[in-house]
Amino acid sequence: GVRALVAPLHAADFADLLEQIDSDDRAGLIRAVGAELDAEALSELDESVLDEVLSYVDPAVLAAAVKELNSDDVVYLVEDLEDEHKARLLGALDDDERVIVEQSLAYPEYSAGRMMQRELVKAPPFWTVGDMIDAMRAAEELPDPFYEVIVVDPGMKPIGTIPVGRIMGTTRPVPLAEIMSEDFRAIPATQKSEDVAYAFSQYHLVSAPVVDEDGRLVGVITIDDAVEAMDEEAEEDILRLGGVGDESISDRVRDIARSRFPWLAVNLVTAVLASMVIDVFEDVIAAYVALAVLMPIVASMGGNAGTQTLTVAVRALATRDLTASNMWRVVLRETLVGLMNGLGFAILIGIIGYLWFSDAMLGFVLAITMIGNLLVAALAGILVPITLDRFGADPALASGTFVTTVTDIVGFFLFLGLGGALLL
Amino acid sequence: GVRALVAPLHAADFADLLEQIDSDDRAGLIRAVGAELDAEALSELDESVLDEVLSYVDPAVLAAAVKELNSDDVVYLVEDLEDEHKARLLGALDDDERVIVEQSLAYPEYSAGRMMQRELVKAPPFWTVGDMIDAMRAAEELPDPFYEVIVVDPGMKPIGTIPVGRIMGTTRPVPLAEIMSEDFRAIPATQKSEDVAYAFSQYHLVSAPVVDEDGRLVGVITIDDAVEAMDEEAEEDILRLGGVGDESISDRVRDIARSRFPWLAVNLVTAVLASMVIDVFEDVIAAYVALAVLMPIVASMGGNAGTQTLTVAVRALATRDLTASNMWRVVLRETLVGLMNGLGFAILIGIIGYLWFSDAMLGFVLAITMIGNLLVAALAGILVPITLDRFGADPALASGTFVTTVTDIVGFFLFLGLGGALLL
Ligand SMILES: [Mg+2]
Ligand SMILES: [Mg+2]
Ligand SMILES: [Mg+2]
Ligand SMILES: [Mg+2]
Ligand SMILES: [Mg+2]
Ligand SMILES: [Mg+2]
Ligand SMILES: [Mg+2]
Ligand SMILES: [Mg+2]
Ligand SMILES: [Mg+2]
Ligand SMILES: [Mg+2]
Ligand SMILES: [Mg+2]
Ligand SMILES: [Mg+2]
Ligand SMILES: [Mg+2]
Repeated sequence: GVRALVAPLHAADFADLLEQIDSDDRAGLIRAVGAELDAEALSELDESVLDEVLSYVDPAVLAAAVKELNSDDVVYLVEDLEDEHKARLLGALDDDERVIVEQSLAYPEYSAGRMMQRELVKAPPFWTVGDMIDAMRAAEELPDPFYEVIVVDPGMKPIGTIPVGRIMGTTRPVPLAEIMSEDFRAIPATQKSEDVAYAFSQYHLVSAPVVDEDGRLVGVITIDDAVEAMDEEAEEDILRLGGVGDESISDRVRDIARSRFPWLAVNLVTAVLASMVIDVFEDVIAAYVALAVLMPIVASMGGNAGTQTLTVAVRALATRDLTASNMWRVVLRETLVGLMNGLGFAILIGIIGYLWFSDAMLGFVLAITMIGNLLVAALAGILVPITLDRFGADPALASGTFVTTVTDIVGFFLFLGLGGALLL
Repeated sequence: GVRALVAPLHAADFADLLEQIDSDDRAGLIRAVGAELDAEALSELDESVLDEVLSYVDPAVLAAAVKELNSDDVVYLVEDLEDEHKARLLGALDDDERVIVEQSLAYPEYSAGRMMQRELVKAPPFWTVGDMIDAMRAAEELPDPFYEVIVVDPGMKPIGTIPVGRIMGTTRPVPLAEIMSEDFRAIPATQKSEDVAYAFSQYHLVSAPVVDEDGRLVGVITIDDAVEAMDEEAEEDILRLGGVGDESISDRVRDIARSRFPWLAVNLVTAVLASMVIDVFEDVIAAYVALAVLMPIVASMGGNAGTQTLTVAVRALATRDLTASNMWRVVLRETLVGLMNGLGFAILIGIIGYLWFSDAMLGFVLAITMIGNLLVAALAGILVPITLDRFGADPALASGTFVTTVTDIVGFFLFLGLGGALLL
């Protein structure tokens, strides 16, 4: 039956399946799988369906499943649960395991303390490679994943790390102190997950020790969880640039509509502002309707040029390729790009306007508007995200609306103002 | 001097510094560092400055540096060089190393064959843990990074993998065949790098064997290079959604302007189409100028709602959360979201139109337009990327322009058509 069909699936693929089917099927599938449920699959589930799926799982099955997971995965399962449900899940753990999970939960959301697992291998510096190997062979179970041994001093402070491969390539009598890397990166438990993700990506880490305020080892973060954080950061940026909040493809209609409404409402306000600019020039339009016909070109070119610059800037800020050291050079470069493309499209649009409406002056008005608007688009596109970033705000958040508002308003003002002055 | 200042920098940070300073300073910095140049830093450089930086490096220094790198990093350095420069760099390698690099270069760009390194540890299944440890201790140098031993049969086909940690936790007499994982994922050398990246992220891999057409082991891909590919994929999507091609913050003004021009040109054509729709209703606008004043609201709301849906769809296609199995459910959901928000904003905009121009019928026209336009925005926003994806095109590419063209044209048609029928 169904159980045989899903049995060969990797936990991550089974989780994706659960996300993609509808609610009824989810309940049915969980019931069909019963006690065979892979605990890993639960920790692979997206937040948007986690609560629901957990509610279908038999409490005894859930309790057994949770005991198989690393502490970071248990933290992921419980962190967003309602109190009652959370207490029940934590109650299924052994006392020491529960304390560990609660310590992680005490750190803020999206921090290293939430990402770390407590399952790790540590050793004193005076141990030899032989001691280390013997200890690992004697261990009932080794952490999985496990890539590095962390060397700690008597105060539990990490003083070095050793990739497992290096231990294997070294003979038994060599002390760990001799082969450990001292230039490892210890991650403060309060560090933001996006900074953790950056460090893993920038320095090619596969695991890193996490330390508390006193510099004592409290856990280890592994690359798979850092990759997840990277992915979430990229998703957040791409969605925010598209004017969408934190939403998932498996959310319900009402939740999606509700989460998109505020972004559209902000956009409505800014669109009304642009309309008010046009309203000022009502008489100009009534006297020269071609201006109304051509307005979308002005708005669209300005908006798109601004979005191009903005997108590049937001991405470069996220990858830290745009920093204080090259900021002004980039602003200058974007301004010049805006000017160059402004000139190019001024010629094109000038000719189009002239040929379409047989009015050379209209072509001239369009051309001047294009130069001004693409210049303003470049400036807004680069300065808005940089400024947001400087003030600690997310440069991806709402800057799109802000930039297109600027280009709309400036574009319409230029176009209709010039048109009124030169065409009537 | 400068050399002492940059010496403590990690190779990746030194590379970022080189990217962020201007051309003259780059030449000066490379000269100041001289023979102390870290080979790793070269392989960390962005493509946009790689050529230039390599041209500043003394050939003897470059030849020495390249010998320290893993094969994948050498491939990265040479793949985009002009033939003459490439031949010189390859000439600096030993014969066997050069053959290895040339084999990688024979695979297509953005394939597993280009990502893999040839430095790996393999062993026959009958070896014991003790044999393995002895072999590793005897090795002059172990690969770095190195996370898994690949077990191969006599025909060099991978039959299992063993994380190094598991070897360390096992006693010497145990044969590798007993502890190897047989459900590892072998990656075909021709697989696209975005699929490689997906497999690493989805299945939490840290390294994976790469095989040729005959299933023989040819290399290994490690997580750091998969992370780089993930990053490039995310960057490509975000930039394409923003109407930008493959560009970097350190590109020159002329290159940036030239790469953005075609996107704006396409946008100009579609904006002219929208203007032609308005042109059809010239008389309507001349008779009722409020319609021209309100047009930006229609265009802006439709464009933004379409972009929201499109962004979510492109992201979900990239993460494979939107598949054939949930496609129609998602289309239905988006349509309902469009309808719900359409109704909400119809009421809002209807009231605004009525109050602003004291004309209830104008409010009604705006309201109906909003419902129609947000519905069309939802449909275009979800169907355009799905269709592009079905035909093997990149759903992020150009779908933004396409969606906003649809919402502009439908929106203006509805608004001015209804306006002409009901208001005059
Ligand atoms: Mg998943
Ligand atoms: Mg959470
Ligand atoms: Mg984990
Ligand atoms: Mg996880
Ligand atoms: Mg964030
Ligand atoms: Mg961000
Ligand atoms: Mg960079
Ligand atoms: Mg870099
Ligand atoms: Mg390349
Ligand atoms: Mg590599
Ligand atoms: Mg690399
Ligand atoms: Mg893509
Ligand atoms: Mg997913």
